[in-house]
Amino acid sequence: MRAFAHLLDRLQGLGLVAEAAAHCDIPCKIYDPGPILIDALTVVRMIDILDDWRAHRPEDDIAFLNTVARAVAQKEEHAEKVKQAVRVIWGDYFKAPQFEAFPQIHELTHRIMLQASAARQGVSREAAVKLVDLVNEFAEIFWATKSVKTKRCTAPYPPALAVVYPDL
Amino acid sequence: MRAFAHLLDRLQGLGLVAEAAAHCDIPCKIYDPGPILIDALTVVRMIDILDDWRAHRPEDDIAFLNTVARAVAQKEEHAEKVKQAVRVIWGDYFKAPQFEAFPQIHELTHRIMLQASAARQGVSREAAVKLVDLVNEFAEIFWATKSVKTKRCTAPYPPALAVVYPDL
Amino acid sequence: MRAFAHLLDRLQGLGLVAEAAAHCDIPCKIYDPGPILIDALTVVRMIDILDDWRAHRPEDDIAFLNTVARAVAQKEEHAEKVKQAVRVIWGDYFKAPQFEAFPQIHELTHRIMLQASAARQGVSREAAVKLVDLVNEFAEIFWATKSVKTKRCTAPYPPALAVVYPDL
Amino acid sequence: MRAFAHLLDRLQGLGLVAEAAAHCDIPCKIYDPGPILIDALTVVRMIDILDDWRAHRPEDDIAFLNTVARAVAQKEEHAEKVKQAVRVIWGDYFKAPQFEAFPQIHELTHRIMLQASAARQGVSREAAVKLVDLVNEFAEIFWATKSVKTKRCTAPYPPALAVVYPDL
Amino acid sequence: MRAFAHLLDRLQGLGLVAEAAAHCDIPCKIYDPGPILIDALTVVRMIDILDDWRAHRPEDDIAFLNTVARAVAQKEEHAEKVKQAVRVIWGDYFKAPQFEAFPQIHELTHRIMLQASAARQGVSREAAVKLVDLVNEFAEIFWATKSVKTKRCTAPYPPALAVVYPDL
Amino acid sequence: MRAFAHLLDRLQGLGLVAEAAAHCDIPCKIYDPGPILIDALTVVRMIDILDDWRAHRPEDDIAFLNTVARAVAQKEEHAEKVKQAVRVIWGDYFKAPQFEAFPQIHELTHRIMLQASAARQGVSREAAVKLVDLVNEFAEIFWATKSVKTKRCTAPYPPALAVVYPDL
Repeated sequence: MRAFAHLLDRLQGLGLVAEAAAHCDIPCKIYDPGPILIDALTVVRMIDILDDWRAHRPEDDIAFLNTVARAVAQKEEHAEKVKQAVRVIWGDYFKAPQFEAFPQIHELTHRIMLQASAARQGVSREAAVKLVDLVNEFAEIFWATKSVKTKRCTAPYPPALAVVYPDL
Repeated sequence: MRAFAHLLDRLQGLGLVAEAAAHCDIPCKIYDPGPILIDALTVVRMIDILDDWRAHRPEDDIAFLNTVARAVAQKEEHAEKVKQAVRVIWGDYFKAPQFEAFPQIHELTHRIMLQASAARQGVSREAAVKLVDLVNEFAEIFWATKSVKTKRCTAPYPPALAVVYPDL
Repeated sequence: MRAFAHLLDRLQGLGLVAEAAAHCDIPCKIYDPGPILIDALTVVRMIDILDDWRAHRPEDDIAFLNTVARAVAQKEEHAEKVKQAVRVIWGDYFKAPQFEAFPQIHELTHRIMLQASAARQGVSREAAVKLVDLVNEFAEIFWATKSVKTKRCTAPYPPALAVVYPDL
Repeated sequence: MRAFAHLLDRLQGLGLVAEAAAHCDIPCKIYDPGPILIDALTVVRMIDILDDWRAHRPEDDIAFLNTVARAVAQKEEHAEKVKQAVRVIWGDYFKAPQFEAFPQIHELTHRIMLQASAARQGVSREAAVKLVDLVNEFAEIFWATKSVKTKRCTAPYPPALAVVYPDL
Repeated sequence: MRAFAHLLDRLQGLGLVAEAAAHCDIPCKIYDPGPILIDALTVVRMIDILDDWRAHRPEDDIAFLNTVARAVAQKEEHAEKVKQAVRVIWGDYFKAPQFEAFPQIHELTHRIMLQASAARQGVSREAAVKLVDLVNEFAEIFWATKSVKTKRCTAPYPPALAVVYPDL
Repeated sequence: MRAFAHLLDRLQGLGLVAEAAAHCDIPCKIYDPGPILIDALTVVRMIDILDDWRAHRPEDDIAFLNTVARAVAQKEEHAEKVKQAVRVIWGDYFKAPQFEAFPQIHELTHRIMLQASAARQGVSREAAVKLVDLVNEFAEIFWATKSVKTKRCTAPYPPALAVVYPDL
């Protein structure tokens, strides 16, 4: 990623790529993949919680269903938020200069959509972790287009997976 | 478009393209660009209403601002709905077979996002009509992937632009 | 229905019924029962999916509950959208001239509310199909008040029931 | 209203009218027009605030527009909440026995929809006060169907109009 | 409570406490804990309904899960509404003069948050009734700050618990 | 802040303060003030945009009002999101051990509510910057309760104010 950012810097320096002129719908220029990663982690977390309840099922069926229904609804909501927020950055911020530097961004965005669907439709932890991976990749490309370095750190809360942070 | 649909039919007939196996997030297989076109028409309509108020501005400023603020909010909401609903069809329904037949779909979807932003950020009728055009194009491709013929008819309400309907 | 539309045309021609002056809350004059029918079909579809899962229940209870909870939530949401959208057309568009031509519209609207409740409260396919029937009836009356002819066609997606389209 | 409630009591006592068997969509039997009246009062209040700003317009146009846009958005939201909540009681609670005792309820409900539209579309205090009147009438009929007596008291906050309370 | 209100009146009369100058975000001065109590009652009601289904479980698992999932979702939604609406009154209306007269309000508000969480996370009727108690306490303090007398009456619908009403 | 975190660590080490056992409403233990700071920055950004339009007002009034109404609506929405998200962390995560270490948290939370209201009600950049300050303070306390070090860095997008990040 840093190589890409370096390349983009150089291309911009040479005038071969227009300075990234990101505009949101206002346009406000505030884009940050940080909250999307929290949503993706939450999808994994809900599956961990469901796994825990499978292992320690309460005797009362209603109490069991209360907890399962709530975790499923949260998984649903956060996976949908991943989709919406990735769409906003892809659809509003990414434009010709970014596509030239990162031609894979259309397909990566589309794969995030499919992966978020997979995480919603089932209860596979592997599918949800794969979603975090793809959003991490998306975040690295995003920050690279802005020439902001990134690092991967373990999130300071469960499920404690490595996520991308800007290295400020 | 019909040529594309015909080609897709033939490729599927020859076993060269897998039968389109669209799945929504349930998956429920119910996709329909009809409501998206109504939203896009509404964006044009709001601009027509704003134009009308520019021409016939009431004396009372508060009454004027009440109507302008309401039309702007509706324009905003319906342009956002266009973006969301196009994202759902693109992100959930379109998969490898459809991309092979219609390789332009990533870029068309992205252009709809930018065009909807343009329609929100300003009050240009031309920008809003262009949004309807792009969604019409998207609808034709969608129906073509399902081998459903389409027609363009004048919508039976203002702004009475031509929109794509399945020809059932 | 076409007889009603013809009658309405004639009454308007004779000056006995004021030209339908539909106004939405903007007012924008864009009313279309098309999206309501998609929502009603979705209610049936969710029950078909639930029936399918009853027949092919996965061994893992959590996976089973994940799918059931999601389909029930979708059924709930789309039945509520039917109620809201029918209320908008009934409450904003229908006025004295339409009530004179179609005096049953209050009661039909109210029956749609009760039928949508029935479809939410249980998992009866019959109740959901009845909801589609009532919304079809509502759509025919709506288009008749605008003197737009209609046809019933099989929807090009599951559950493939006959729904009303304007015959443009 | 109390006469109506008395009549309903007697008819029920004579077995001529089935006991009101209200069901919400759960069904939960919790219906209360109280919050609707607060929303209707808020519509009047927003118009009072707009009138106040017309009289004391700040010099800075942006500050003026900020306050007007916010009050208009609140007026819009609360008028829509009136419509939705009246629809729920009318569509879910009112059934044959209530319609027999109060045959005007369809038309009253429809008038509330039109009046709420009028309050949204303009900035007339008279239109908003009329909306409060109609919702008061609706509340009296609702409580009458449950044989709960009502009283009209001045609301303990602005705009301090008389609203219906159950007399418990 | 009435003693507190009396004290507040006297302190204000003596000029020792500034007149309560409540402002909402508009500011509109319309605050009313009535709807919050309806939401809290609904949480209890949903648990009663779940208890009823535990006792009379239908044979069809899908029908059972449909009803449980719907009641859990309603319980979730209304407990969240309690939290949001209490936050609005606490965060927007309560200011220095009210805190002086009722120094326990921060902690009471926080306890409502925790109690609403408890009611969501489980299916304990006791937890939900405790939530109603705390909101009653909050309502009494609120009305006391406005020098409005209150009474506790049995709500005219299930679960028929005693709730606070302004005594107008 | 680090002194506080150090103190909390020591108190916990000595068994004088229970280990922070944060629970969200699932409970999921995922709390992160990062998105709240983005929302607070957005409030400042909208005021900067409004200031820019005051300075460069377009000739067409409708175009001007379109942009102002949209920025005001965004300011409103993001200030409300600040309030909601701060309430969730305060109401769900903070419990007795955290209050002992940080007794000012009730009052700080309440000041954020009032400051967010001030930022919504007017167009003062100072009020919005003060909101960012208070949320930064809240974020530092939050991370301190979890013994996670923090740093203040300039946000990599406008308005480029210093915000708190966990120092991972």
